[in-house]
Formats: sequence, structure tokens, C-alpha cells
Amino acid sequence: MSQQYTAANCPHREETTLASAPKTTTVKDATLHLMRGLGIDRVFGNPGSTELPFLSDWPDDIDYVLGLQEATVVGMADGYAQATRNASFVNLHSAAGVGHALGNIYTAHRNQTPMVITAGQQARSILPLQAFLYADRASEFPRPYVKYSVEPARAADVPAAIARAYYVAMQPPCGPTFVSVPIDDWAQPAQLIEARRISREIGPDPEAIRQLVAALAASKNPALIVGPGVDRADCVAAMVAVAEKTKAAVWVSPFSARCSFPERHPQFHGFLHASPAQLSDALKDYDLVVVIGAPVFTFHVEGHAAIFDGDTTIFQITDDADSAAVAPIGTSIIASMAPAL
Amino acid sequence: MSQQYTAANCPHREETTLASAPKTTTVKDATLHLMRGLGIDRVFGNPGSTELPFLSDWPDDIDYVLGLQEATVVGMADGYAQATRNASFVNLHSAAGVGHALGNIYTAHRNQTPMVITAGQQARSILPLQAFLYADRASEFPRPYVKYSVEPARAADVPAAIARAYYVAMQPPCGPTFVSVPIDDWAQPAQLIEARRISREIGPDPEAIRQLVAALAASKNPALIVGPGVDRADCVAAMVAVAEKTKAAVWVSPFSARCSFPERHPQFHGFLHASPAQLSDALKDYDLVVVIGAPVFTFHVEGHAAIFDGDTTIFQITDDADSAAVAPIGTSIIASMAPAL
Amino acid sequence: MSQQYTAANCPHREETTLASAPKTTTVKDATLHLMRGLGIDRVFGNPGSTELPFLSDWPDDIDYVLGLQEATVVGMADGYAQATRNASFVNLHSAAGVGHALGNIYTAHRNQTPMVITAGQQARSILPLQAFLYADRASEFPRPYVKYSVEPARAADVPAAIARAYYVAMQPPCGPTFVSVPIDDWAQPAQLIEARRISREIGPDPEAIRQLVAALAASKNPALIVGPGVDRADCVAAMVAVAEKTKAAVWVSPFSARCSFPERHPQFHGFLHASPAQLSDALKDYDLVVVIGAPVFTFHVEGHAAIFDGDTTIFQITDDADSAAVAPIGTSIIASMAPAL
Amino acid sequence: MSQQYTAANCPHREETTLASAPKTTTVKDATLHLMRGLGIDRVFGNPGSTELPFLSDWPDDIDYVLGLQEATVVGMADGYAQATRNASFVNLHSAAGVGHALGNIYTAHRNQTPMVITAGQQARSILPLQAFLYADRASEFPRPYVKYSVEPARAADVPAAIARAYYVAMQPPCGPTFVSVPIDDWAQPAQLIEARRISREIGPDPEAIRQLVAALAASKNPALIVGPGVDRADCVAAMVAVAEKTKAAVWVSPFSARCSFPERHPQFHGFLHASPAQLSDALKDYDLVVVIGAPVFTFHVEGHAAIFDGDTTIFQITDDADSAAVAPIGTSIIASMAPAL
Repeated sequence: MSQQYTAANCPHREETTLASAPKTTTVKDATLHLMRGLGIDRVFGNPGSTELPFLSDWPDDIDYVLGLQEATVVGMADGYAQATRNASFVNLHSAAGVGHALGNIYTAHRNQTPMVITAGQQARSILPLQAFLYADRASEFPRPYVKYSVEPARAADVPAAIARAYYVAMQPPCGPTFVSVPIDDWAQPAQLIEARRISREIGPDPEAIRQLVAALAASKNPALIVGPGVDRADCVAAMVAVAEKTKAAVWVSPFSARCSFPERHPQFHGFLHASPAQLSDALKDYDLVVVIGAPVFTFHVEGHAAIFDGDTTIFQITDDADSAAVAPIGTSIIASMAPAL
Repeated sequence: MSQQYTAANCPHREETTLASAPKTTTVKDATLHLMRGLGIDRVFGNPGSTELPFLSDWPDDIDYVLGLQEATVVGMADGYAQATRNASFVNLHSAAGVGHALGNIYTAHRNQTPMVITAGQQARSILPLQAFLYADRASEFPRPYVKYSVEPARAADVPAAIARAYYVAMQPPCGPTFVSVPIDDWAQPAQLIEARRISREIGPDPEAIRQLVAALAASKNPALIVGPGVDRADCVAAMVAVAEKTKAAVWVSPFSARCSFPERHPQFHGFLHASPAQLSDALKDYDLVVVIGAPVFTFHVEGHAAIFDGDTTIFQITDDADSAAVAPIGTSIIASMAPAL
Repeated sequence: MSQQYTAANCPHREETTLASAPKTTTVKDATLHLMRGLGIDRVFGNPGSTELPFLSDWPDDIDYVLGLQEATVVGMADGYAQATRNASFVNLHSAAGVGHALGNIYTAHRNQTPMVITAGQQARSILPLQAFLYADRASEFPRPYVKYSVEPARAADVPAAIARAYYVAMQPPCGPTFVSVPIDDWAQPAQLIEARRISREIGPDPEAIRQLVAALAASKNPALIVGPGVDRADCVAAMVAVAEKTKAAVWVSPFSARCSFPERHPQFHGFLHASPAQLSDALKDYDLVVVIGAPVFTFHVEGHAAIFDGDTTIFQITDDADSAAVAPIGTSIIASMAPAL
Repeated sequence: MSQQYTAANCPHREETTLASAPKTTTVKDATLHLMRGLGIDRVFGNPGSTELPFLSDWPDDIDYVLGLQEATVVGMADGYAQATRNASFVNLHSAAGVGHALGNIYTAHRNQTPMVITAGQQARSILPLQAFLYADRASEFPRPYVKYSVEPARAADVPAAIARAYYVAMQPPCGPTFVSVPIDDWAQPAQLIEARRISREIGPDPEAIRQLVAALAASKNPALIVGPGVDRADCVAAMVAVAEKTKAAVWVSPFSARCSFPERHPQFHGFLHASPAQLSDALKDYDLVVVIGAPVFTFHVEGHAAIFDGDTTIFQITDDADSAAVAPIGTSIIASMAPAL
């Protein structure tokens, strides 16, 4: 990732290669892989039993910095993130450890310091019995001084939750985020996920826009997915002009709540289904997909989203930073519709 | 308050004299007066600027125990409360101080230790500007590991909020409670409030029931206020029997959602208004008021509740511990309706 | 369950037979089995797609009462519960349906009406993508007007979550509770759980105490598990007297924070491990286990708790209603330690 | 406010004149004045008793649109805001009314519809008694589907809370916000506040930047207030270049956590105090104040901020949209530091 691309305050990172197909590994290995992709080279922590499966067989290329009380751990992580301008990574011990840390999490929030905080939770199977060291409503405890907080509904979703926590932490105004991880999740199967490119500029990032323009120029068969954000911003005319210039096929995003592209326009190709399989099928012949003013993607039913596995290059332009943070793949540009178009 | 009355695990306390009329003082003095009535003889704290008005001119009869970090402060208070079996009183410094303490507040919650935690907040007038040291959603921060948490809507309500926090902390299962106090509240006017008697037994406290029986025997003109809790427990017949035995006037509590007393019964006197003035007027001639299965009292409009000023003795029997904790005056007995009647 | 046992305001229910061994079925069938055991004979609802797996192949012995708007659904369920004095069962449609219902959920809360509310949630696998109809922080949405709210961490835990929601809803003061159920959970495997006996009296339920005395008299080899609640209530001497009268073996509950039984007493048998397997092994020869002042049980690690499968009769006496509601098996008596002992 | 200035999706509004001095009126009149300044010409509602003081003597220039159920009220307001692209204004009835509305508030959240929702609350003086119609934790109830929610700590802060709710609702991604207003607040004294200009572009709004450049050109004695956001974005060199170009006096914002301007630079004038009086005094001779990378302003103590009364023109450039929404006065430009400088 080039320095220009991610604005002045982004860390240098090596370019990550997008996986050509999902690889199944463990939650722990997928998390370490993601951390490397995000340029995270150390973890600040004060562990207990609920963190042990994450810490066993610790890799050589990531440092573990031990603090003797959690307030100190978060203080070190705050300074490190301020100095490196990349989110720091913290690992705490269940509710007691998070509790000790919350004074300095409040400070990191006021400092607008990007920080991804993880904490152990008891094993899922004994949570209903209010087990020793269990945290009740674990993801609510650090609020309101975290920007995002979650305990994933499945072990397999932990790496993606940490990815989202990272992207949200890095969006201005930066701040801490939180992921609660049950002890038994680390050994469960998960798919590798790659670090994504999300613009951190407030406004259309010039370098990201340049890359998108280059991708459009190189594409033999591009598709534009138009969502409700376009009409919401009163930009339908500009959207039509862009579409006509690119000669791309135009699809409407699933469950679009507003009419953002004229349905009698010759480039209009139809409405995408909210089914992963049907949507993937509709888009399978395009080499470039640009989503404008919509999430990537809104589904209603389960299924295999083959479009996330393959060679399709995906860009997203959205004015909803949250929608950018949850996209599983592709480059996201956070911008108002009018100047971006 | 006698030892027998409040069950084995209640602290010794001198009998408090109920005020014959409300006295206006400051929030700070009303709080200190209440603390003495509750048997609180020391405060555990680690203060900052937002606590200074509470700490200035500190009285000789209450010790201030300083801890150098908030985790230690709460740890000391936890042990003290466990040893004395009375709620300990903690004073912390805004969000940063509360944050440092939350690990041990979690522990006190798991220990079921009664503890009233107060924390400074910035002045009300500069909260909208997100002032330095201000706490955003201050009363949400210590959740979910406190049983009750509030930042009162008016300075004048701080002493009553601390009283409620004490009663809730002492109800089984015991635990910590929290009151956020803006720095400018301590010097504002408030009325003195007296420590109340709330039974801590799960079930009709024998000594409290004995006192109620004695009060009924001594009363020349008693009234029973019957609320929805009676019919909810399917105890209307028992209620009628009790009413006939006492020969008391029977009123229905304001906004009673169920019919708990037959309206054609000769002792039925009518429905109380949800207006403090009208309700006080209706009850002004009774020397004893016993509220059964209802709050003391549910109002709909503002006004002066003269009944709280005067010589009326008030008892409450309720199966809602919260309703007992918020009653401003009188003796509350927490019990199911069937055995209590 | 006899009428006397559960106090005047308990519904008539047939006696349920405790399973001699766990049976694996689906989440849906385990839920329907539990509902029958709890005397729930109808469901009030307004469904959408996320509830369909629960509603397919609906059984003949439970009525489904359809309302055309959720406010009406909850209103009907409120009246039904008030009339029958058993918790009503409500099924709503994801966040939109819960949202429409919250006005009347507030009313049910003020009415102290017992009500178990379930709502569909999107499939676990597509929650990270903010799927159509997904609820963000689903279990937080109905707060603060529900007494308990959860989205279980595993599909298999849904029936136990509904059981806990029922017991909490029925504890005085009664009120609504909430369980969010991902659409794909209903078809997952789960163990059958049986309706349990939890006293609803505030205070030691005379009939439950009588049953416990009878069980002690009949037992050839009883064990008492003594927890921190005993010393917390300053009742160690009474505890020793009870133990000596019963001649039972005395164990200390896992992670007991206080010393509730003298460790040099001849009946003292040791400290129970917080491991399901080790604890079950230690207790496997007793035919009756009475837990006093502790949860049933506090574990620290995963494992198979054989004690929940077999023929051991378990009673619990606790002053913590929550601890009674989460116990997976046995009869719970909610009472202060002093009068209960 | 010109159309260009506020981007394509901003409503036409007449230019408002900034008050030369604060005028004291009632909370109600200050709110109506603010609404007019924000281009709000109708209120959608379904009132009850707690809203009456707001609705009495209703002015002719603002329509009141009555819905018969709150779901309908919010549905109408959603469509109106989508059509006009200005936030709609909703008035509901305490917790019951808000509860009925929450299904469609969820929908408005998913629609990203800007909407300011107000709801009545009981009188402050009877909240501690859990009065009829009172809402417990009123500002928590509509979460998590509102972007901002508050019950102000003083009656006098209601108009500013509504202003903040409006600005937050209008920031992309747009959405509903909530203000709980105790019934007795409307008649209390408050200062008039004027509608402010906050850029809604994601990125430095070209027209706002043009206005700032013009103001700098016209200023005889400008000051730059430099905050931690500048160094956080690694833009100190650019900041120095801008300062040298403008020849302005440079002050450091109160409690700046990072060093964003060299303290030996000849234009460096010192550190601003976190006291309203001292800060106003330090800035009283400047005709233009431009705050860069900091709030307007962070105070630590109470006092009179004369700078908000007078003729000083204030601009703010910040990457923290929240900081822009809470600024009491001046034009705010939300942008990353690098492109803005």
C-alpha cells in the first residue's frame, strides 16, 4: 500500500496479495495472518487463563509486551499507536482485566487513539451457567468509550470482527474498539481474510480514485452496482453521466430503498437478488465491480458468495464509513456522492 | 434500628428521628446527614478536581480513607463492607477514576458486596461542550456490573439518589450501585432526608410485621392503601379479611391497574388522585397509612406532598424491592402478598 | 407441581418427570418440550421470514394467536398472562417487530406482567455483513424495560435461555424478558431440558421446605454444598447446626469467596473443583445434594457434568434469584439464609 | 445559506443573522426559533400530557401533523425527510410513545433518514418517585438505532441539545437522533441560539473553504487556534506554512494532547486556558478566530464565555464530526487535516 494512497498519517505496509480462494485455517492463525497484513507487529497485554489458547506457540515476528496492570498496558498501547499512527493491538483478561483498563480506554477515546482491544471470555458452552471469569454482556462493558464492540455470534467470525474493529478504529476520529473472544474460539476453523484497503481521508482519496479510474480503464467488462445513497444525495443525473462514460452494465443493489438509476436506461441490467448465490451468478462475468452508494452486499438468506472467492476486482464508494468497515473484500472509498462522481 | 429488626446481617445503628418538617440545607450537608443515619462512618476515595466541593470542610466524625489507585480504593471498600456487613461508601474521580475502578467493581458485583459508589462529574453548565473531565453517559459507564446507576436530573435529588443507591445495594443479592454527581450540585439547596427502614429479609420480616401490628393497634384512625399487587397475587379475599379486622378506611392507590378491593365494600373510601396535593388532602386525617401492593406513591403531576412532611406514620408492604427503595418515607416490608397478609 | 407449592398465584401444571439422561433433539423440539413443561399453551405473534423455521410443522397442542401489529400482539399477551397468572409467550419478527412492540412491552413492564418474548434474528453466518432484517445488538434493543435479555452464544443454548427467561419473568416483581434467536438455530441439535421448580414466594416457601425436609429424611447419603452466601449472612453457626442434624457430608462450593463452614469440622469433606468432571466425580455417590448459598455450580473449565444426567436429587437454597434462574436442574428455594436455616 | 455551500442535498434556507448578544427567552421559544433557522416547517407527532407545554400557543408558521399511532408518525416523517432532504422533526409521548415508534425508527436508521425525535418526560421533580408516564433511562431506550440521544442535565440546555441532534442527524450517514424533554423544561429560561453552518460534505467543502479564505483576507487581526488534530495527522509542517502565509497569531487549544505548533516560532502566542473567562480575554482583540484540529472550546471550569457573545467570527476545521456538532457558534468544516491545510 503506497504512502500517498492512505494519506499522510498511514503506516507503511507491504502490499498484500488478495487470496485467489478462501483457505481454511484456525481462528488463531487467521487472526495472526490478518494482523501481519495490517502492519501490527506487537501485542500489549496482561493475560489470564481465558487468553492462553491465543498466546500458546506465539510467533517470532510479533512481539508480546507484558504490562503488570491493565491501566499500564493500555497506556503503553496508546503511546505506541500515537507514535506509529497505526492502531495498536491489546489483549486483556476477561471482565476483570477490561475493567482495570477502562480508565485508560477512556483516555484513549479522548485522545482519539486507534486501538484494537481484545479480551478473553469463558468457553461458549459454560456461559449460561455464569462460569468463573465469565463476562456478562461482555461487549457492553467497555461502552460508551469504544467506537465498536462485539462478541461474534460464531467462532468463525472472530477474524472478520477484528478486521472491522481495526478499520473502525482507524477511521477519523480514531479511537479504541473492542472484540470479546470466547476461549474455545481460537482453535475453531476459520477462513483466511486479507487486509483490505479503506480510504482514511475524509473525502474522495485522490490516490484511491486514481486506482479506480485505472481499473475502469483496464476492465474489459465492468459493472456498476448502484445503491440508495446515490439518489439520497440527489445525484442520479451525475450517476447516469458516469455510467454512460464507462459504458458499464448497471445493476441496482439488493433492497435499494430509493431509485438511483432510471430503469428504462439502455445500460440498466436489473435488480440484484439478496441471495449470495444468485447475486454471485449475476455478476460472475464481470472483471470489475464498482459498488456506489450501497453495502458490499446486503443479503437476506445464507449461501455461498462465490464473488468473494474469485478474480473479480471490487471497489466501493460510500458515505457510510460503517458500510466500508464491514465489507468483506475490495477497496472502499469513503466520500460524499457528489464530489466522488 | 434494632438488630433484630433488620435481620442478622444488618449493622447496629442508632435510631434516627423522623423529621417533623422538611429542612432545607445543601446537597452536601443533606448527604452527610443521610450517611450518618445509614451508619456510614468512612469514605474510601481517590479524588480529583470534580470532587473538591464534596471534600472541603470535611467533618470529623467520618473518616476519609485515601487510596492511590482506584482499584485499591474499591478493594478496600469491598473488604470493609464484607467485614461490617454494611454498605461501604466510595468516592471516585469522574470517568477516568470510575474506569480505573471497574475491574474491582466487577469483583464486588461477583462478591455480592454492598457498596455505594459516587463519582464527580463536570459542572452541569459545561457538559454540552464536552468539557475536560466530563463523562459521557456517566451513569451507563459502570454497567452492567452495578445494580442501580443514576445521574440525578436535578441537584436537589442527589441525596435521595444516594439513599436509593444504598437501599438497593443492601437488598439481596447485595452489590455495588453508582451515583454520578456534577461538581456544582454539592452547594445547591436540598431537603434533609432521613434514613429509612427497609426490611432486608427475603420474606415478611417478623420484627417489622410486629411493629406494623403494634402501630395498627395503637392507631386511632388508620387507612389502608390497596394497590394492584394484591389482585396480581390473587389475594383479594385475604385483603378484605385484613381490612375488616383492622376496621381501617380502604383507599385504592393512584392508577391501580387491577381491582384489588371490592368497590361496594362498606370500608371502601375511593380512589386516590395521582396529585401530591389531592392525595395528601385525602389522607390528612389518618394517623397511620399502610400501603399494600403499591408504590408510595405514584404521581402524575408536580405539587407539594404534605403527607411526607407531617406526623403520619407510613408502612409499605410490597413484593417489588425497587418500589421499596424509592419510597421517600416510611417503613417498607418486602414480602409476597399471600404470607404477609 | 401442586398449587400449594408454588404459592397462590402459580398456574396449575402437571408434574414433569425429570429426564434420567439428556436426550438430543433440535432446538425447536426442545423449546416446544420446555413450553409444555412450563404450562405454556399458546404463542402470541406476528411473524416474518426469520421466524419461519420455528413456526413450520406447528404442533396441535399449542395455539398460535396472530396479531396484525406487534403492539396488539403484546397487548393480548399481557392480558392473557394477567388472567392466567402464568407467563405468556410472544414471538416477534426481528428488530422491526420488536420495535413496534416496545410501547406495550414498556406497559407490561409497568404492569409487572410475566412475559417471555422471543424474536427472530438473521442467520448467524450473515450477521457480520449487516444482512437485511438483522438486528444490531439485538439483546440491547428492548432494554431497559425487560428484566433479562440475551442472544445465546450458541444455538444449543436457546432452550436454556428461554427457560431462564421464563423463571426470571415469573420472579416478583414479574415482568417481560427477551430472547433473540437466529433463524438457523431452530434446526440445530440441542438437549431436552425439563421445567424446573423455583419457589416464587419471597421467603422460604413452606411447601418447598417441606419437600426438602422429606428428601433429607429419605436420603441414605446426603451432601451439603456450602457457599459464600452463608457467611455473608453471618449464619455459619446455624449452618453447622443444620449440618450436624442432617449428618450429611459437607463440601465447599467452587471458588467460595468466604469461609462458611469450619474446615476442621469432622463432617467437612473438602473443596469442590470448578471442573464439571471432577465435581461430578466428587459427588457421584450422594443420592441427595443440597446447595446452600451458592450457584449450581460455578465452573471454570468445560467438561461433562455427569451429575446433571443421573439420579442425584438436587435442591438449592439461595438469596440470589438470578442464581436460581440459571441453575440447570433441581429445585430452587429463594430465601434469606437465616430463616431458611 | 447558499445551495452550493451545503452540497447538493441540502435544503434551501434563508441566511440567518448571528445574534450580537445572547437573548434570554424560554426553552420553548428558543426551540421554535432554532427550528425556523434550521428550515423545519412542520412537526410530526402524537402527543400526550407530557408534551402539552410544548404544543400550547402553537405558532402559525409551523405545521403540526398528527398521526394516530406513533409508527405512522415516524413513517410520515421518514418520507418527508427523504423528499425534502432536510431532517424531519418528530414529537412523541414519553416512553409509551417512543416504544410504539421504535419499529419505524429502526427503519429510518436503516434508511439513513435524518430525523430529530423529541419526546416528553415527566417533570424533573417527580422523576425520583417513578411517576406515572416517567421514562427510566429515557435516553437509552431508543438505542442502538439512533445516532445521538440525550436528556439534558438542565432545562436551559434543551435548545442546544436539539441543535446538536439536528447536526448529527444531518451528517452522513444520516439517521435519527433523540432528545428527551421533561415537561417542566419548556417554560424555563434559555438563551436564543442560532442555526449554525456545518459542512455536510465528506471532505473540505469547497464553498466553505472559499468563505474561510475570504474571511482571512478581510480580517485585520486573525488568530489561529491549533489543536492536537494537526500533529495527530502529521501535518505540523503544513500548519506552520499556513500560519506563516496568514501572518495570524497562533494559540494552542486548551489541554492539547499533542504538540501541533513549534513553541519557539515567532507567531506562537501561548496556551489558551480552559477557563471561559480567561480564554475569552486572551482572544478578545481578534476579529477572526480559526480553530484547527480542536473543539470550540474545551473548558474545565464554569464561567462566562464572552467570546460567544460578541463580534468575533469563528471557523472550525476538524476531522471529528461530533466536535463540529457540539460547537456552540461559528462555521464548522469537517475535513482531514492534510487536504484542508
